[in-house]
Amino acid sequence: MNPQRPQLVHDLNQIRDIVRKAQSAGKKVGLVPTMGALHQGHLSLVEQSASQCDLTVVTIFVNPTQFAQDEDLAKYPRTLESDLELLSQFSPVIVLAPEAADVYPAGSSTAVQPPDVGRLWEGEKRPDHFAGVATIVLKLFNMVPAEIAFFGQKDYQQACVIQQMVKDLNVPMEIQVCPIVREPDGLAMSSRNRYLSQSERKTATVISQTLEIAEQMMREGETETQVILDQCMQELTAAHVDSIDYVTIADPITLELVQTIAGPVVILIAVYVGKTRLIDNRVIQL
Amino acid sequence: MNPQRPQLVHDLNQIRDIVRKAQSAGKKVGLVPTMGALHQGHLSLVEQSASQCDLTVVTIFVNPTQFAQDEDLAKYPRTLESDLELLSQFSPVIVLAPEAADVYPAGSSTAVQPPDVGRLWEGEKRPDHFAGVATIVLKLFNMVPAEIAFFGQKDYQQACVIQQMVKDLNVPMEIQVCPIVREPDGLAMSSRNRYLSQSERKTATVISQTLEIAEQMMREGETETQVILDQCMQELTAAHVDSIDYVTIADPITLELVQTIAGPVVILIAVYVGKTRLIDNRVIQL
Repeated sequence: MNPQRPQLVHDLNQIRDIVRKAQSAGKKVGLVPTMGALHQGHLSLVEQSASQCDLTVVTIFVNPTQFAQDEDLAKYPRTLESDLELLSQFSPVIVLAPEAADVYPAGSSTAVQPPDVGRLWEGEKRPDHFAGVATIVLKLFNMVPAEIAFFGQKDYQQACVIQQMVKDLNVPMEIQVCPIVREPDGLAMSSRNRYLSQSERKTATVISQTLEIAEQMMREGETETQVILDQCMQELTAAHVDSIDYVTIADPITLELVQTIAGPVVILIAVYVGKTRLIDNRVIQL
Repeated sequence: MNPQRPQLVHDLNQIRDIVRKAQSAGKKVGLVPTMGALHQGHLSLVEQSASQCDLTVVTIFVNPTQFAQDEDLAKYPRTLESDLELLSQFSPVIVLAPEAADVYPAGSSTAVQPPDVGRLWEGEKRPDHFAGVATIVLKLFNMVPAEIAFFGQKDYQQACVIQQMVKDLNVPMEIQVCPIVREPDGLAMSSRNRYLSQSERKTATVISQTLEIAEQMMREGETETQVILDQCMQELTAAHVDSIDYVTIADPITLELVQTIAGPVVILIAVYVGKTRLIDNRVIQL
């Protein structure tokens, strides 16, 4: 047992008391909401929080309401022991790992209807996903009333949904979105990467390579997004990804489709490699 | 200008600062959300807050999103001057009267999907009403992060919706529901009573009389709600109310219809007298 391991809290009243007490003592509290299965992407959020806050609360909760029936809730990796081990390098960190029955007691039925920015892309492919995300995130913000919450840019549209929700519902929380952390070959870190077979893992590198190609085309002056997207589709297909949910070039704020590039854009990709769904994105400011 | 008039705040950042500062100084803050047009019912909430809290924030905001197209948003009474006058008897009270453009800035699109307890009765007759109510109430709770919020039992189902929302979304707010305040002849106080003509005002007394008759029938041993409801309908019809939205006997927690009385119930009535919609209720614990 590592003595530096973070304190592990399961009780929702206890965590709020801890946070309130720290704040009463003048401490700034940071929140890093996760579903566990921590990787360097998560750890970069914790590091960011630790650098700005006096106390960081990492929540670990695999939220059932953001998974559809046919998705990977059951097999989603649960690795609490190694998560705690990984968090030992940061201090002071408290881990909140609540029970599902405490988070969603019987009769619980209120939900957040996510903002319009959640309508397209992920919103179309995973119809109830952002309602599940927005609801759990708002609940976590109320459970852990920190000053700042840290999210990864990897889930770009999720970050947009959360930022807009916070604004729309007057939630007293600052949202910081931190850069994507990548493997040496460019694959964006994700808890789902561990589902990939060796050959799938190799195929998956095409995603970030496609983002790179799209950016290059823009830098070389291509402004018609359809031309760029055709090339992206061709790259992904040639690399034998198993299916393409979407590849798009959108306004980085509204996430509406852009036809002709005349300002900043975000390229969003969602594909299946084998049975694993992977997403990635890149913001381009020419 | 009365020197005891409450401080009037329009700015959302300012009110949160005031509340946080009071709380840092160890003060307990109470919140009374209203749409203005204050009457003794509202004032009883302020009185309750003043007795338990060191500072009371009364919000006055006619929330457009809880009115349907064909409802009385435009003509809803706006009486800020006399509201401030009425609040002068309490101290310390701060009034927050935000601008609609600050409450719902352009692009605002997140909403609260209200809990199941909002489905029947008002939920059926006013389909988007509780989404509007739940959303604005959650926003007000975030704007004014008080310890306790006070609501009137007159809007019984609304109070159920808010209590369940607070539970479901882990909102750190205690909800207190205060008794209905009535005119000497029994009519429940409501900002909408001022719409009534003299003859309508007289007709409106049948509502509380009907609740009284229903209670008496229960106390005399009637357990079949249909028998009681038939009698209620007869009373309301005989008094020439203009239409009956619903008269029901329901479980006081779930608001599901009760067929045979075997425990506490709530009687809920919604009728039109002239063009004015009036609601009332009574909880019966035999």
